[in-house]
Amino acid sequence: MLENITHEALCGASVLQLKKICEQLREEIFQTVAVCGGHLASNLGVVELTVGLHRVFRFPEDKIVFDVGHQCYAHKLLSGRADRFFTLRRRGGLSGFPKRAESEYDCFDTGHAGTSVSAALGIAKARDLQGKHFNVIALIGDGSFNNGLVYEALNSLRILHTNILIILNDNGMSISPTVGGTHEVLDGLRNGSSRGDVALFERYGLTYMGVCNGNDIEELLPALENAKKALRTGSVLLHVATRKGQGYAFCEREPDRTHGISPAQTGKEYSAALGEELLALADRDERIVAVTAAMTDALGLRPFFDAFPARAFDVGICEEHASVLSAALAAGGMRPYYAIYSTFLQRAYDEVIHDICGQGLPVTLCIDRAGISGADGETHQGVYDLSYLMPVPNLTIAVPKNIAEFRLMLRESVNMKGPLAIRYPREGAEGEASSLEIGKFEVLHSTMSDIVLYAAGERCISIGDRVVRAAHEQGIEVSLVSARFVKPLDEEMLLGRRERYVITLEDNALCGGFGAAVARLLSPSGRRVLSFGCRDVFIPHGSVGELMHEFGPDEDAVLRAVRECHARG
Amino acid sequence: MLENITHEALCGASVLQLKKICEQLREEIFQTVAVCGGHLASNLGVVELTVGLHRVFRFPEDKIVFDVGHQCYAHKLLSGRADRFFTLRRRGGLSGFPKRAESEYDCFDTGHAGTSVSAALGIAKARDLQGKHFNVIALIGDGSFNNGLVYEALNSLRILHTNILIILNDNGMSISPTVGGTHEVLDGLRNGSSRGDVALFERYGLTYMGVCNGNDIEELLPALENAKKALRTGSVLLHVATRKGQGYAFCEREPDRTHGISPAQTGKEYSAALGEELLALADRDERIVAVTAAMTDALGLRPFFDAFPARAFDVGICEEHASVLSAALAAGGMRPYYAIYSTFLQRAYDEVIHDICGQGLPVTLCIDRAGISGADGETHQGVYDLSYLMPVPNLTIAVPKNIAEFRLMLRESVNMKGPLAIRYPREGAEGEASSLEIGKFEVLHSTMSDIVLYAAGERCISIGDRVVRAAHEQGIEVSLVSARFVKPLDEEMLLGRRERYVITLEDNALCGGFGAAVARLLSPSGRRVLSFGCRDVFIPHGSVGELMHEFGPDEDAVLRAVRECHARG
Repeated sequence: MLENITHEALCGASVLQLKKICEQLREEIFQTVAVCGGHLASNLGVVELTVGLHRVFRFPEDKIVFDVGHQCYAHKLLSGRADRFFTLRRRGGLSGFPKRAESEYDCFDTGHAGTSVSAALGIAKARDLQGKHFNVIALIGDGSFNNGLVYEALNSLRILHTNILIILNDNGMSISPTVGGTHEVLDGLRNGSSRGDVALFERYGLTYMGVCNGNDIEELLPALENAKKALRTGSVLLHVATRKGQGYAFCEREPDRTHGISPAQTGKEYSAALGEELLALADRDERIVAVTAAMTDALGLRPFFDAFPARAFDVGICEEHASVLSAALAAGGMRPYYAIYSTFLQRAYDEVIHDICGQGLPVTLCIDRAGISGADGETHQGVYDLSYLMPVPNLTIAVPKNIAEFRLMLRESVNMKGPLAIRYPREGAEGEASSLEIGKFEVLHSTMSDIVLYAAGERCISIGDRVVRAAHEQGIEVSLVSARFVKPLDEEMLLGRRERYVITLEDNALCGGFGAAVARLLSPSGRRVLSFGCRDVFIPHGSVGELMHEFGPDEDAVLRAVRECHARG
Repeated sequence: MLENITHEALCGASVLQLKKICEQLREEIFQTVAVCGGHLASNLGVVELTVGLHRVFRFPEDKIVFDVGHQCYAHKLLSGRADRFFTLRRRGGLSGFPKRAESEYDCFDTGHAGTSVSAALGIAKARDLQGKHFNVIALIGDGSFNNGLVYEALNSLRILHTNILIILNDNGMSISPTVGGTHEVLDGLRNGSSRGDVALFERYGLTYMGVCNGNDIEELLPALENAKKALRTGSVLLHVATRKGQGYAFCEREPDRTHGISPAQTGKEYSAALGEELLALADRDERIVAVTAAMTDALGLRPFFDAFPARAFDVGICEEHASVLSAALAAGGMRPYYAIYSTFLQRAYDEVIHDICGQGLPVTLCIDRAGISGADGETHQGVYDLSYLMPVPNLTIAVPKNIAEFRLMLRESVNMKGPLAIRYPREGAEGEASSLEIGKFEVLHSTMSDIVLYAAGERCISIGDRVVRAAHEQGIEVSLVSARFVKPLDEEMLLGRRERYVITLEDNALCGGFGAAVARLLSPSGRRVLSFGCRDVFIPHGSVGELMHEFGPDEDAVLRAVRECHARG
């Protein structure tokens, strides 16, 4: 275990000693991620930069906002958390992201791309208004730099009249390689071919400094000192070039595959099925195109991108744009599949409402990592999508019971006249599925009982299945239905079935989700609806199993409810 | 009434005749907006530009996407809709925005800022993939050009390898004057002081052409012809300078006041109360700051901006950035009031979840134009906010019964430890309000009846009040409660009261709103909850009254429900 390293120790260290510290940090990060999972390549890339920042600046008086935040491991190790670093991403342990609640060294929570410049501006402006004096830094990667929010923040530098230091950590990668116009400018600046583009930053009121080798502590220290000095008279952008995965050959060679490391998966991945099905569909149907916001591999789209490069679009970390682009491709006659994590779709909510659903366009939203997603914690749980999508008119929302049914839904999607969302977790079982009718539930287990369980999605059906068996062993019969379309609801079945006790299961926020919709529908008839889903708190990091038990629909609680219903008769 | 003017007629017209046509269009727009309300200044500003486009391009084969879309009046008049133009913004009449469902000349629906470049790219790419040939144009104002979505789209020009024409309609205005770094670049280009910033566009792969006087048809025609030619070999940005309100002295002088014209208001505006209260609070509390995304006047913030310019931030049409900035100002110790229309808050959903609520920061969201908002139609109805906000942990959501209570809530907000959202319609009555307790409903009318109405917000309380009176006249007693906090719900009252029939009223989507939450809470006890709210369709334009009757919680329907409950006993 690494000992805590103080600011004073860093200030007193020689360059050689600093390099040694960098090596130790890199080793600690590598070892910990190997066990706990986490973001490897990006953290290895910023070790020298973090050491340099902790020497040149004085935290926590000075403030640093980590864009996205997954590159904060060295910062955590240098801010009194080395002794707990082995708990990284575990329930009750250190978060893999900055957390104000965890340390005063974390001044602003992050998780999604592009917020750091806005956040730094707000903190700096609050400082000015209170007559305080400290430095505020936004550390942002070139991948995040494509996100529109960054431009909104840059645009207001001149409005807010405050000083911040933006460190642009340029490693040429989002999760996938960074793409597009901004990237080409940065490339030009890095290789010296387009110094004129410095105007890009200066017009926003930034003094541009760089490019500095961010993996060379000797080059970094004076660059950071100079930036700190320049910060006295205005805002500064320091362009730092780093190498994602620096120090480990495998990571350097394959940074996209080592972006995030997860403990070994036990089930099959839905994303692989997405890739397979899209490929097959696209072979037969030239209208099919795929859209992603910098997540090609994680979403399973690589085979499609390889086979149909002209019909595959990775637009960088630009969820809003990807959403409108998908809508417009559909308006132009194509059949777009926009694959995205549940949590990131929050970024494109307005565009889902207006551009896709408002126009009733046949875009298929493939919503991956829906439900509790585990070790990334609060900012990555996919537990709101049903709540925010169900009120959107024109949208059909499908929740497959297994991967085989997911495949069926994808095949059926080609015939949809309007927008479709399919939400699914990372892993599941292949299973079996036969037919599918839009808007119709499927009865999985039918009894003459007065209790019925409606479960939305594979995880909840698994819980439901276990509850049905456990109840049966206790002499209580319960029916089980797969609520495979939560919009439109299968009102015919819901209203037509006669059970007095209706239990709903979803791995989505209880508020405004599937259960609430069922309760609203059945309440006038006096039937009793008991809803189980995610609690109304931000769900922290941990394993999916732990979190489902503690924050999600819990098997034991459902079984207790079944027994109570039975007892009341 | 203007006669329909065809493309052929425009092509055959002399410059003098074109000028005459522009005059006629301007007169028609002015007369119609004077009666129907609508966007005046922006439409007057683009008359020559629209005439020029309709002459140089051939619609509907060529496609044009209007960013935001409220500047499409001349386009509608030139595309076979002159004979219906007098129905503008009226129920069943022409929309004030482009609508695919209305005309083949409208190729993409818009309503919120910044989508046009993404949309044009998608349409152009679909064209290419299908081997078709036509021109695709995005017409975007400089106000929208601050929105981050535009940069996301620009960034992907090089990725998508397709050609579009972006016409930057630069009038120096959002609704308020355009602000920030981008604006300064455009100013420099317009007055010729910074030609070097052309690189800003070229680096994205755009050929920059301009600046052309967009109110001079003689200068416009060759500029549009040249842009059309250049479009054969790549994407083009044509920078056009126009004058918002051109042709009407009052509009030219006061473009922000003549941005939108509404029929005379009958009630008092909540926004005025916001301005008054914030001013009073800020006088006593130096931590109070105000944030807006280019809507200072409409939100009632002008007095605050005038009195406390150093604590007032208009960041342009950047709802996401405004949200993170507010969170960061709060993290830095300030008490931000972020005022925004309900519909625009959809743009900042992810930031509300993570940056404001995830960190539990004391930001007050002042959500104006909540509920059905009327004549702007589908893209401006504020009917989703309860559904998408209620699932967000840590957030308190208040819905005042009148303006006096709104004032109380604002005064109370200063004591909040976490985030607060107050949602309110445009107009209401001052009324009276006494005390307030967070999370507690208020009983307005108490009876011994077995029927209770829970109404959220002034409009619904008015409906509830009328229903209570009408029912009383028919010999049926009904209790009425103001659900002034929909989050947290007053569970104590909801569970504690004994009525068997519970009726909820909200001017929000029925799905996932207040009623659904009440149904979920009360369903296990077997009480019957009947929810009234907005139907699950995109609500078109019309008067608030008409739309509430047709799409919202309708008084007659509620009264019928009351009678049925009473009859069932």
